[in-house]
Amino acid sequence: MPGGSPEAYSQLEGMLVQIAAQTPSGPCVTWVGHGSAGHYVKMVHNGIEYAIMQLISEIYSVLKFGSLSNVEIAEIFEEWNEGELKSFLIEITAVVLRKKDEHSDHSLVDLILDKAKQKGTGMWTSQSAMDLNVPIPLIDTAVTMRFLSARKEERVQASSLYNIEHDSPSYSREKLIQLCKQSMLFGMLLSYGQGLDLLNQASANYKYEINISEVIRIWKGGCIIRSGLLDELQEVYTRNMSLKNILLSDNYVDVFTQTRKSVIELINYAMHHGVPVPCISSALNYFDAYRSAELSSNLIQAQRDYFGAHTYERKDMPGTFHSNWEEK
Amino acid sequence: MPGGSPEAYSQLEGMLVQIAAQTPSGPCVTWVGHGSAGHYVKMVHNGIEYAIMQLISEIYSVLKFGSLSNVEIAEIFEEWNEGELKSFLIEITAVVLRKKDEHSDHSLVDLILDKAKQKGTGMWTSQSAMDLNVPIPLIDTAVTMRFLSARKEERVQASSLYNIEHDSPSYSREKLIQLCKQSMLFGMLLSYGQGLDLLNQASANYKYEINISEVIRIWKGGCIIRSGLLDELQEVYTRNMSLKNILLSDNYVDVFTQTRKSVIELINYAMHHGVPVPCISSALNYFDAYRSAELSSNLIQAQRDYFGAHTYERKDMPGTFHSNWEEK
Repeated sequence: MPGGSPEAYSQLEGMLVQIAAQTPSGPCVTWVGHGSAGHYVKMVHNGIEYAIMQLISEIYSVLKFGSLSNVEIAEIFEEWNEGELKSFLIEITAVVLRKKDEHSDHSLVDLILDKAKQKGTGMWTSQSAMDLNVPIPLIDTAVTMRFLSARKEERVQASSLYNIEHDSPSYSREKLIQLCKQSMLFGMLLSYGQGLDLLNQASANYKYEINISEVIRIWKGGCIIRSGLLDELQEVYTRNMSLKNILLSDNYVDVFTQTRKSVIELINYAMHHGVPVPCISSALNYFDAYRSAELSSNLIQAQRDYFGAHTYERKDMPGTFHSNWEEK
Repeated sequence: MPGGSPEAYSQLEGMLVQIAAQTPSGPCVTWVGHGSAGHYVKMVHNGIEYAIMQLISEIYSVLKFGSLSNVEIAEIFEEWNEGELKSFLIEITAVVLRKKDEHSDHSLVDLILDKAKQKGTGMWTSQSAMDLNVPIPLIDTAVTMRFLSARKEERVQASSLYNIEHDSPSYSREKLIQLCKQSMLFGMLLSYGQGLDLLNQASANYKYEINISEVIRIWKGGCIIRSGLLDELQEVYTRNMSLKNILLSDNYVDVFTQTRKSVIELINYAMHHGVPVPCISSALNYFDAYRSAELSSNLIQAQRDYFGAHTYERKDMPGTFHSNWEEK
């Protein structure tokens, strides 16, 4: 086993489930870091899990709206699971969608109440990220959607109040599936990216000394977020231990640039038809904000200085400034 | 003054700023509720403030992308401030946009660094909402965007890696302004709605016994989120003290239904041109999810039962169930 004291291992209880798994990169166990690092890594793992599950559920709802049956959607997920989207969550979704109810000839998933529950780990990830000022909107959105799903009675009541007209666009089945696949890839990569960004910041803040590459390695087998995408991601972090965000790696520029177009088309389709895709939308907005050298947050700083004298910094000179905004 | 002990008033320190304000509905002071209710209400006030400020900054960035100058955008905000969007934040935004730098002939706002800071109250609102399982994605998104704005150096680096092609749609200036106005109204109403939903739940959970109508009344003057929209909102909550969500009030069905179309067109414009509109997108997705009798969260429950035996409920019979999903 790699270095690390027994005490450190004992802090890994949350990750014991991974210990048995073996991958071509070795057994899925490692010394994660000092103090509570093992627990923190497991918590962030679960946050990423929430985001990927919400993304899959959005893709499922779009395909369902596109008149595909559960078995047809299962076939699509099975096909995806043979390619770059190969992952435990895509794999089990196909199995879930094929499962028949034992009391009827319905798909079992169609009979399950659409209130998603949670044990709290996704929520803790979001709350901790806020404490550390790290933007992880995909995870936040997935957590919030679980809360919103629980408001079943209110949703039923609201559904009777609002009639949404469906209009264009209408895509061929092949195109819709392609848009879904590209959006899944875009969102899944950013789910990992946001989670790893948080781990980086938490490691620095709490002095965990987490080796991100090692964390990715142990996520490659035995755990819920394991996927083929982690192979390249581990290589990227092994080469550049100080990478701040997946979006700053040359490896991913092409894939994000190319899939972004499909994400836009998918969101356009979904919103015109009233199908909520909050995580996919959140992924696009995060991407577009992160790659914006200039955001409109200068206006927010000006407003804060206006009403609270919170001061602002300038682009053209150092220092901290306050203005009397009402003075002409 | 309305009822309430001196002890209760002493808990209102966070709201003292409002005490002097007078409105046609009376002085902006009230007994908010038991225990820490006053602080909680002030915190949620600030959460709503974050959301509205982020919405305004997104509208500003869309209009700026549409080639409008700061003075032209100021004129638009001034016009809006004469109508249903009349509000302190819209009003001061116009003043901010007209302010000239004292060292040059630039607009001062253009020289302000686009890193939005924060004192923590918006973040506490989001974290508390998560503890209470209340979905307030507009506030979460506004908080997260402040964090993301602070990553200036990373954003500059990412901007050199990603080239986004701009394509259709292209709208006339009049249409773009109209879409912005409708989107502002849609988002602003939901910002209040999500904040009040949180207050409702917090009041029940912490036994604050908050009178939501009274809270809205004292927000009508002297505070940062004061606006003309609060008049109708107060009436709505006065008539129906137990209203769970703004989207369940007959009063707002028409306005949400009508403005939603513009929100879609605005998001479509923004995403095709690479302008991030995370709060506006979040508002639309919240709306569409809230008014969905059926969400795809049944799939999430099935996945959770598959990998963690977390069980699920059924639509067609009471009880708690677990399945062996791999069994044919």
